[in-house]
Amino acid sequence: MVDPRVNVIEQRLKRITRIIAVSSGKGGVGKSMVATALALSLVKLGCKVGLFDLDFTSPSTHIILGVEGIQPKEEKGLVPPMVHGLEYMSLVYYSGNQATPLRGTDTSNALIELLAVTLWGDLDYLVIDMPPGIGDAVLDLLRLVPRVEFLIVTTSSLLAFETVKKLSSLLRELNVSILGVVENMKMNDSSDVKWRTEMLGLKFLMGIPYDPKIEVAIGDAAKLLETSFAQRVNLIAQRV
Amino acid sequence: MVDPRVNVIEQRLKRITRIIAVSSGKGGVGKSMVATALALSLVKLGCKVGLFDLDFTSPSTHIILGVEGIQPKEEKGLVPPMVHGLEYMSLVYYSGNQATPLRGTDTSNALIELLAVTLWGDLDYLVIDMPPGIGDAVLDLLRLVPRVEFLIVTTSSLLAFETVKKLSSLLRELNVSILGVVENMKMNDSSDVKWRTEMLGLKFLMGIPYDPKIEVAIGDAAKLLETSFAQRVNLIAQRV
Repeated sequence: MVDPRVNVIEQRLKRITRIIAVSSGKGGVGKSMVATALALSLVKLGCKVGLFDLDFTSPSTHIILGVEGIQPKEEKGLVPPMVHGLEYMSLVYYSGNQATPLRGTDTSNALIELLAVTLWGDLDYLVIDMPPGIGDAVLDLLRLVPRVEFLIVTTSSLLAFETVKKLSSLLRELNVSILGVVENMKMNDSSDVKWRTEMLGLKFLMGIPYDPKIEVAIGDAAKLLETSFAQRVNLIAQRV
Repeated sequence: MVDPRVNVIEQRLKRITRIIAVSSGKGGVGKSMVATALALSLVKLGCKVGLFDLDFTSPSTHIILGVEGIQPKEEKGLVPPMVHGLEYMSLVYYSGNQATPLRGTDTSNALIELLAVTLWGDLDYLVIDMPPGIGDAVLDLLRLVPRVEFLIVTTSSLLAFETVKKLSSLLRELNVSILGVVENMKMNDSSDVKWRTEMLGLKFLMGIPYDPKIEVAIGDAAKLLETSFAQRVNLIAQRV
């Protein structure tokens, strides 16, 4: 049986020009930071932007943005609250912030449900903070929203880049568009990741040096935008 | 129907004194590095040790150890090869290093299969490199191997520690033993994570400063053991 929500999802997303999924091969590379800063940067550039946190493995954007006590409104669906100029929606509204382990099927259901009930406005960009890697939820998203474009975040570490290889080869198999690779938390001047990225036939979008000020900017969007990290992400926003 | 492999698993693990699962709330905190260095340190202390990589999200220990071209032997089960003095087994032997996305059920099946077919010797310690967070595979492991003890790795980041809260509260609900928390890649002298850990009623095992030499030691176990990182992990090995 076809899930009746699938057609609804297409309707829900049709007023959004571009959908950018910020992803990574593994966790801990700063994916949520990049996704949040990218969404905020696009707002600053005058775009209409939504930020959608679908990283059920460790939802973080609400902590980065300092969103507390704000809930979506129910109006024949969920209307995302406006947060720092962007329409904001997160899986934490669905699951709460509890330690509930979701089995694979439950995660997919939660994701499909959220895609089906969220009422985005007219958006130039919807930035999605994806779970790392490729699991059930990602496969479902790709099935339901094939036009999504991936931006892959890695660090300089060989271990992180190994997972980029897998992720990108799988995305290609699935005919998903890949905008390019961002090297985050760069600790040195090596162009190793750039070279490896280009060897994979992918675009190297940006190297972002490690910025210790990031940690103290967590929860404060204005402070985040002042960091050198955000300035680098702003350059990405101008290019995507 | 009860999976017939469940009884087999109990048999397979009964010659192992202690099973330590190195886990984290989110990826990218250096969990695989800690697990590998911990296993190598226990070998140096004269223990019989196994290392079991069950992190299907981003299997890394084979890269850290520089294991190439070595396969387990088939003898009414899989006999783990000896690598740098430890019995070594990884999901990559099962799935290969391909970009195959496993659905939740497949992951659980692969994990159960590996637990059932691996023929460990008499071990003092089996160190397991777990997938980050709590997903299907972790729930299955806890169901099949309830005596496993967890060692939780985090970084100094607030975002990582948020996920420690969830992980530890869930492990407690499931009556799983928690050895304590390791703060890895420490960038400053703050005792914030130590304090937060103790507020959760958990033991703070060790802070490990960020060590840039780690990256160049990837693939070289001897070099890894010479780093200041490994010296700190060695202190953990003496305490667990």
